[in-house]
Amino acid sequence: MLEGGLKVARQKSFKVAVVGAGMTKFGELFDQSYEDMIVEAYRACLKSVDKGIDEKDIQAAWLATVQGSLIRRELLSGTSLAEPLGLLSIPVTRIENLCASGSDAIRNAACAVMAGLYETVLVVGAEKMRDVPSRASLVANRGVMSHLWWHPRGATAPMVFGQIGTAHMHAYGTTREHFAKVAVKNHYHGTFNPHAFYRFEITVEQVLNAPLVSWPLGLYDCCPTTDGAAAVILTTPERARQYTDRPVYLIGTGLGIDVGHSHWRSTYTEWPANQQAAKEAYAMAGITPREVDVAELHDCFTCTELVTYEDLGFCEKGRGGAWIESGGPWLGGEKPCNVSGGLKAKGHPVGATGVAQACEIFLQLRGEAGQRQVANARIGLTHNIGGAGQVSCVNIYSNE
Amino acid sequence: MLEGGLKVARQKSFKVAVVGAGMTKFGELFDQSYEDMIVEAYRACLKSVDKGIDEKDIQAAWLATVQGSLIRRELLSGTSLAEPLGLLSIPVTRIENLCASGSDAIRNAACAVMAGLYETVLVVGAEKMRDVPSRASLVANRGVMSHLWWHPRGATAPMVFGQIGTAHMHAYGTTREHFAKVAVKNHYHGTFNPHAFYRFEITVEQVLNAPLVSWPLGLYDCCPTTDGAAAVILTTPERARQYTDRPVYLIGTGLGIDVGHSHWRSTYTEWPANQQAAKEAYAMAGITPREVDVAELHDCFTCTELVTYEDLGFCEKGRGGAWIESGGPWLGGEKPCNVSGGLKAKGHPVGATGVAQACEIFLQLRGEAGQRQVANARIGLTHNIGGAGQVSCVNIYSNE
Repeated sequence: MLEGGLKVARQKSFKVAVVGAGMTKFGELFDQSYEDMIVEAYRACLKSVDKGIDEKDIQAAWLATVQGSLIRRELLSGTSLAEPLGLLSIPVTRIENLCASGSDAIRNAACAVMAGLYETVLVVGAEKMRDVPSRASLVANRGVMSHLWWHPRGATAPMVFGQIGTAHMHAYGTTREHFAKVAVKNHYHGTFNPHAFYRFEITVEQVLNAPLVSWPLGLYDCCPTTDGAAAVILTTPERARQYTDRPVYLIGTGLGIDVGHSHWRSTYTEWPANQQAAKEAYAMAGITPREVDVAELHDCFTCTELVTYEDLGFCEKGRGGAWIESGGPWLGGEKPCNVSGGLKAKGHPVGATGVAQACEIFLQLRGEAGQRQVANARIGLTHNIGGAGQVSCVNIYSNE
Repeated sequence: MLEGGLKVARQKSFKVAVVGAGMTKFGELFDQSYEDMIVEAYRACLKSVDKGIDEKDIQAAWLATVQGSLIRRELLSGTSLAEPLGLLSIPVTRIENLCASGSDAIRNAACAVMAGLYETVLVVGAEKMRDVPSRASLVANRGVMSHLWWHPRGATAPMVFGQIGTAHMHAYGTTREHFAKVAVKNHYHGTFNPHAFYRFEITVEQVLNAPLVSWPLGLYDCCPTTDGAAAVILTTPERARQYTDRPVYLIGTGLGIDVGHSHWRSTYTEWPANQQAAKEAYAMAGITPREVDVAELHDCFTCTELVTYEDLGFCEKGRGGAWIESGGPWLGGEKPCNVSGGLKAKGHPVGATGVAQACEIFLQLRGEAGQRQVANARIGLTHNIGGAGQVSCVNIYSNE
């Protein structure tokens, strides 16, 4: 684990309640606009509040979105959220931190509640990515990364993440089969999630025989570009009682940063940003990795999830392959990871992803996850990485 | 003033210290990259800390930037700030809320300090806009707004703000001369500011005779597209004593939101978002507009500043023209506004603007503003509007 860098100033007890969580189905939502998705996620979130909630109780909001709608290029900023919801009398901040935007929006919103500025706040993540062909989507992404000299030389997302996979294989004997099992697991989990984009099982053979995208990642090692939105409502622990007898609490949050240029990296077999975020979140929550019962991890590519097991301390360094072999991250295993289906099967609408992870943990810690429920889940963790590891956010939740 | 909507949950005393503030010169910084500007502003900020500061004391940071570098299209997100400064062991969040991004970044950073998550944090705003010709800059802006149906029909920024000017003229008898005086005043103030883009005086005649951009706004009614960066360091009042005997305190912050589409506006003679932000900030600070000694206002266009006098309660509704006639907002007047030169003369590098406003108030409340010092300034206000009034942020500072 990364040493140094952790600077949680005052270890004052951090506790913010989650009293509602809702999301759209993730997938190809051609029949919904960006605003439609936001409204649906918001309504689902309001509906999830056990004792009901008056919309007027919401005093501020945060929007997580990276590219908004690829086809339309939003006027981003807070108004993109306020207008479709009619929330014009409250402040709305837009957070953008690459694919970790959703989790960082929850982190900032929770700070405002802890600061006493507001009691009850809303966080929404949304992204509309499928309205343009994949090539156009790639071009849009290239726009974001075009100043990086290595990008026009083929450094797409699968290539950059694939480098980590390759280095991990070289250093620790990890195999493509190990990575494939992440996809197999998450597709299996996804069959139990009505909100998941892909709800079919796949086999290790299918993953290995799929067209290669960028070594060692084939088509089934990559998560899909996705449309979707998700929302959560945060409040103080005191105020939470008005809304539910079963709140979930955010008890720790950490954000890590790394260099923007991959070639300046200190290592290719791990993500220092992951480790920094996890260290800060564990310290704030006062827990160790062992105490995590259920986790939603950022499996944008299969190798990302496997390396993340190690970065978060779920298994020893270099043992990610062995851990998935052992069944550890499967539903029913030692520490189930991505029982929602993860980015791989549930989908990855960038700004919505971190918020949707919180939605899953909300269900899990309340025992409401149906067929994919992790037994006796008390502590849940979400992990959301952005760029090629330039940013990582870890949030830790508890049901007591 | 707008009624309803104010929901400051707990009127707990809000107080976050500013112990350092620094900025680049604003202007055409062709010899500096985006990163160069960030480094210069950061170094100037560190240097401004009276008793010095160890960089390791900075525990988290926020970056305000809207388009990053127009020529290069940044990989935005926290790493855009962390990498040039080598701040890779602390969390960095990027805030984007149109032209109000800088002030909203200060608002979010202050929440994290108030929440007790961190003691000492950094806020940087930066924008690199002049490396492309004006036409390319307009195209980039069109990208942001292209989904608004009225945009391809000529609704540029001067046109949208000009609508408010026109409506105000119609409703209250305000004249182009009144607007022109805002430019004359801010150019005069700018001559005293070594960091200002334009340091020359202009006359009412020059403003009125300049080429018309969009009625009633001529060339001299419009602020320039600008390069620049600015930085501030925030900490707890307790910790501040280690860094300075003369901290400035952020004592109130408010953010207002309005509809994204101008044609859905409830009014064209004022900005409800301004009024909402001001109301929240005044309530949190426990002051009235009368107590404000010096203000930095968002004069992207001359009419914006004039209407803002009214929205913030500096003068009565409809009396903005009379108030500037009276000399009220001039240096030496009742309540000097934009003694830095404002966006009009100092410049408007979008993400940096709100942070630079805080830099000016820092100097003013410490009595360090030289020839442009407002005598006995105790309470300072910054006002930062985004889009065409879709978002507004008001921050209030005190020197005690």
